Amino acid sequence: MSEQPIYVGIIGFGTVGSGTYRTLLDNQESIDRKVGRPVRVKKIVDVDWSRPRVLAVPVPQAVKSSDVNDILGDPEISIVVESIGGLKPSLDFLLRALKAGKNVVTSNKELVARHGQDLFAACTKTDFMFEGAVGGGIPIIRPLKNCLAGNRITRIMGIVNGTTNFILSKMFSEGAEFAEALSEAQRLGYAEPDPTNDVEGFDSSFKLAILASIAFESRVRVEDIFRQGITSLAARDMQYARQLGCTVKLLAIGALVGEAIALSVHPVLLPLTHPLAAVSGPFNAVFVRGSSVGEVMFYGQGAGALPTGSAMVGDIIDVARNIVHGSTGRISCTCYTERAVLPVAEIETRFYLRMTVDDRPGVLATIATIFGEEGVSIQSLLQTSASEDQAEIVWLTHQTKQRQMHRSLERLEARPEVRAINACLHAEM
Amino acid sequence: MSEQPIYVGIIGFGTVGSGTYRTLLDNQESIDRKVGRPVRVKKIVDVDWSRPRVLAVPVPQAVKSSDVNDILGDPEISIVVESIGGLKPSLDFLLRALKAGKNVVTSNKELVARHGQDLFAACTKTDFMFEGAVGGGIPIIRPLKNCLAGNRITRIMGIVNGTTNFILSKMFSEGAEFAEALSEAQRLGYAEPDPTNDVEGFDSSFKLAILASIAFESRVRVEDIFRQGITSLAARDMQYARQLGCTVKLLAIGALVGEAIALSVHPVLLPLTHPLAAVSGPFNAVFVRGSSVGEVMFYGQGAGALPTGSAMVGDIIDVARNIVHGSTGRISCTCYTERAVLPVAEIETRFYLRMTVDDRPGVLATIATIFGEEGVSIQSLLQTSASEDQAEIVWLTHQTKQRQMHRSLERLEARPEVRAINACLHAEM
Repeated sequence: MSEQPIYVGIIGFGTVGSGTYRTLLDNQESIDRKVGRPVRVKKIVDVDWSRPRVLAVPVPQAVKSSDVNDILGDPEISIVVESIGGLKPSLDFLLRALKAGKNVVTSNKELVARHGQDLFAACTKTDFMFEGAVGGGIPIIRPLKNCLAGNRITRIMGIVNGTTNFILSKMFSEGAEFAEALSEAQRLGYAEPDPTNDVEGFDSSFKLAILASIAFESRVRVEDIFRQGITSLAARDMQYARQLGCTVKLLAIGALVGEAIALSVHPVLLPLTHPLAAVSGPFNAVFVRGSSVGEVMFYGQGAGALPTGSAMVGDIIDVARNIVHGSTGRISCTCYTERAVLPVAEIETRFYLRMTVDDRPGVLATIATIFGEEGVSIQSLLQTSASEDQAEIVWLTHQTKQRQMHRSLERLEARPEVRAINACLHAEM
Repeated sequence: MSEQPIYVGIIGFGTVGSGTYRTLLDNQESIDRKVGRPVRVKKIVDVDWSRPRVLAVPVPQAVKSSDVNDILGDPEISIVVESIGGLKPSLDFLLRALKAGKNVVTSNKELVARHGQDLFAACTKTDFMFEGAVGGGIPIIRPLKNCLAGNRITRIMGIVNGTTNFILSKMFSEGAEFAEALSEAQRLGYAEPDPTNDVEGFDSSFKLAILASIAFESRVRVEDIFRQGITSLAARDMQYARQLGCTVKLLAIGALVGEAIALSVHPVLLPLTHPLAAVSGPFNAVFVRGSSVGEVMFYGQGAGALPTGSAMVGDIIDVARNIVHGSTGRISCTCYTERAVLPVAEIETRFYLRMTVDDRPGVLATIATIFGEEGVSIQSLLQTSASEDQAEIVWLTHQTKQRQMHRSLERLEARPEVRAINACLHAEM
């Protein structure tokens, strides 16, 4: 084994940075053997070395710095790990790193989703890797880029946000309402004080943009993704889902429809027998359908210092092996084609609808007629009397275009006997 | 893109060979783009071109051959795909291919399990890949060697044989007896006319030898694995398992115990809440525990022409990328250490025991005393009267060394009031 170390610089020493450093230290001997040369962290840069950290990992004084130029300007450092998060100043730092001929490893999903193209463009025979950006420690980027590379991927469906999955699991299994489950998630540290990024599906859409770009070999922009959060879900919908043999999950879905792609993040009724239905609490999973492989699923912890650190170190080892073999830049951007994005109105799915209506003869017929006229075909319905003069009806439709459902809803909302449309969810069955 | 093709030769055109060829043809354009050069099959060798095949893929006359030297002796062919199966003549062919400087891709689990070391030794800067040898199309070898390379893997637990999983699923969900479920599996083509290799756990132990060698970085021999098949399982045991909140799966388990490894293939009681419990029918899954990543699971179709073809083509693409970048041999054998194998008597586990005993006062006390004297601690028991003078007792123990259980069973079998030990299974809880 050559004694000349491969030097790593870590920018940002919060949760992910410390998890990465800890994983590198704990498995140093094994990692060195796998690479064939020592892999060493030369410098860690952070703006505030005094803030409290989830993971206590002592850092030698000589390794600590507050000046990013100690990494970007050091020709000995060939691998730059970014664990700041967000777009600023991460993007600038990484573009400078790549232009300086350094290899980059990051788990920053927003950065990769929004600027993956710019970052790949800045690579000149260098590696840009981001296994940790989706699903924390779960191997998914490399399996898509390598193991499944011989497939035409037709569908990708992921539970890629642990916060919302924890909340939905709690609502489903304990009958909790959204606000209550969110409070519990915040108390346990699974949700941020401002939970918007998670509960409104932004985080999931960053991850879907990354997964879909790789799976369908075409650049997906975050703005192309139809997005619906989970804040308006009620415990009542969970009960009805259970009656229908389903659970409710926030799914990030990308599908090939002809040569176009359909992209959505929203809560979905999913049969309890589906492999993704059993993924509960803070766990993540990604389900992939390929032309040869059929259905495969990847499951594990989708976040946290050490799981994400595991993914970052896997990338570091891969880059280091490429450095040893002179093959950095071996796998670059894989967006070879430009696929059209199916307008959301044209996405076909089944729907779950819950509404409150006047409890009197003829109302059901009126609603059913509107569905019929709009081409929405009903698979089943449940009706219960909510109070003396109003009833609750739950409808499950057959495959319907979003456009048809939208038009039906507009017409229903205009009818006096329809008091409220309480829920409208997609159903995967 | 360079126009100079990378040439592939396929030896053996049965199920896997035709699935590989079909996958290469169907996705040719996408594969060429990923590699940066055309990847083309120049020659396919088979001893009998007239036999019926599961997958009908037309092969041009110029590609067909019956002489393996058309591949091994052709300097233009740089990637040799082996899909004959078994040890003879596969081993000889692949050693010759590697010695001729060719790269090798195979899904032959027995060959890799028994001769992986010899094959790696024959590589001189060439690739030897075998993603398809475990779990069919499920990415597992590359995730272990790459994505999870920064972890100390402490446990690996797999359902890696679809035949036995189909049989056990049928026994569990329909109350079928083993013989009946086996017949059904044979009728559907999931089981061979001679099912020994599957139902006695040989196939699973080949796969465990491969997984454990990579996970624990130490060469595991098939002979080191404790092996117990599923032929003596009764539908009755499935019912008791269900009462205990469990299912029964044939698991291949490798675990780090201190610095040694424990290796076993046997039917196991598994709680219904475990991610592996939901893996039913012909599906496979591998569950991995790592120091940083925590628990991850890989799920999918464990066999078949196209799923295995998917894995083979993923390997072919990886080798081809290495050829383009001059980095073949980038990841070689990863058995860096030599770990002791824990003797089976020292493996600690929980046990499920079903026995028939005389139905009279004092019998339970006698048995419980023997367990107590041997240090076997009981967690729960179920007793039912089987007929007027005999009873059936089911015991679930706490963690116990196999040695202690073995000694207890010897003493119990010598007692006249114990009429039969009907079942003794491991339990993972």
